[in-house]
Amino acid sequence: MSRKVIELFYDVVSPYAWLGFEVLCRYRNVWNMELKLRPALLGRVIEATGNKSPAMVPNKAQYMITDLDRLASYMNVPVCQPSHAFEVMFIKGSLPAMRFITAVAEKEKDGDHLLENVSREVWKRIWSTDQDICEPASLSEAGLKAGLSSSEVEELLGLAKSQPVKDKLKQTIQEAINYEAFGLPLIVCHVDGKPQVFFGSDRFELMAHCIGEKWLGPQPFKPTSNL
Amino acid sequence: MSRKVIELFYDVVSPYAWLGFEVLCRYRNVWNMELKLRPALLGRVIEATGNKSPAMVPNKAQYMITDLDRLASYMNVPVCQPSHAFEVMFIKGSLPAMRFITAVAEKEKDGDHLLENVSREVWKRIWSTDQDICEPASLSEAGLKAGLSSSEVEELLGLAKSQPVKDKLKQTIQEAINYEAFGLPLIVCHVDGKPQVFFGSDRFELMAHCIGEKWLGPQPFKPTSNL
Repeated sequence: MSRKVIELFYDVVSPYAWLGFEVLCRYRNVWNMELKLRPALLGRVIEATGNKSPAMVPNKAQYMITDLDRLASYMNVPVCQPSHAFEVMFIKGSLPAMRFITAVAEKEKDGDHLLENVSREVWKRIWSTDQDICEPASLSEAGLKAGLSSSEVEELLGLAKSQPVKDKLKQTIQEAINYEAFGLPLIVCHVDGKPQVFFGSDRFELMAHCIGEKWLGPQPFKPTSNL
Repeated sequence: MSRKVIELFYDVVSPYAWLGFEVLCRYRNVWNMELKLRPALLGRVIEATGNKSPAMVPNKAQYMITDLDRLASYMNVPVCQPSHAFEVMFIKGSLPAMRFITAVAEKEKDGDHLLENVSREVWKRIWSTDQDICEPASLSEAGLKAGLSSSEVEELLGLAKSQPVKDKLKQTIQEAINYEAFGLPLIVCHVDGKPQVFFGSDRFELMAHCIGEKWLGPQPFKPTSNL
């Protein structure tokens, strides 16, 4: 069986994307798969496809608060609903954060260990500890917590404003749109050369069935052998 | 442990509601629960809460076709995507069908065997065999297939136009809205006197966790004993 490639298009502004990110990171060594983290931008995807934020419908926004609480607890991801998140969602936007994360992805040559850690640290700030993610100092703190040095963080903050990184983010957004995204997270499973696209973080059981893997819940056992 | 009451607010215009309906009917004898089928009207819920049909966003509509195909196969419900469904969704509406189904619910005194069967037969027409569900003759056919006699069907078609049935449907819609519905299906689990509300047909694993039951997938084994 050839290794499946699973791409996760995400934006830290989405708490559902965080849930999907943690679950897929946990399944890295459970499923026969290579995970590709694809930092993108939710706002642009929504804008480009004529969708609107689910949070614009009051009952839906209210439901999402309950839904997220329950999912966070069940999936063991420390999502809570802090005030900064709403400021980022509706006023400031996540563009600087996603450019910074894209810069990390571009700079990291060997694997995506740093990309994973930095993404998680930024998510923690906005969706768990209620801290800003828009200012350079905030992204710097997240980078340091993720294991980068001060000089690396400085370099990445500069790189985040460069044309190649801006272009790379645009290109990733376009790739998501080419998969007919209308929101994020978008999970694209490449099995036998065919992409299978799943929107959201609530299709893992179905996804496992479709790609011939086993769903063991959001907190799978870590196998100690290949058996 | 007291028996849980699970209410399913649904409209036959929604294929996702059909999936949820079949799964809950299968779990009737697996979970310690009493299922209450609550025929409502999706259009009114959407209208009343400022939501819009997901099918209005082209990429989302396209995704739903794929999503439904995969879910139908995985859940073993014969949903396909016939032309009548779109006519009902966007032009004719499901009001006469849901009034007819409400009449069945009102007339049935002992259990909801007929309500279940009639709902399923109407769903089959619109979402599987590509047949009309708007004309009285169509609802009549569905009723006969569900085990009603010709005279019962005649009576129910009359009853469907009566004020008490119109009022009952309105009341059910209002109950769904009181649970902060923004769409259907809406599943309300009453456990220890507290309602837990789940939207859609993709939260069964989470729901099981929240209500203290076990999720065995969309096609659970039927237990042969209480062990």
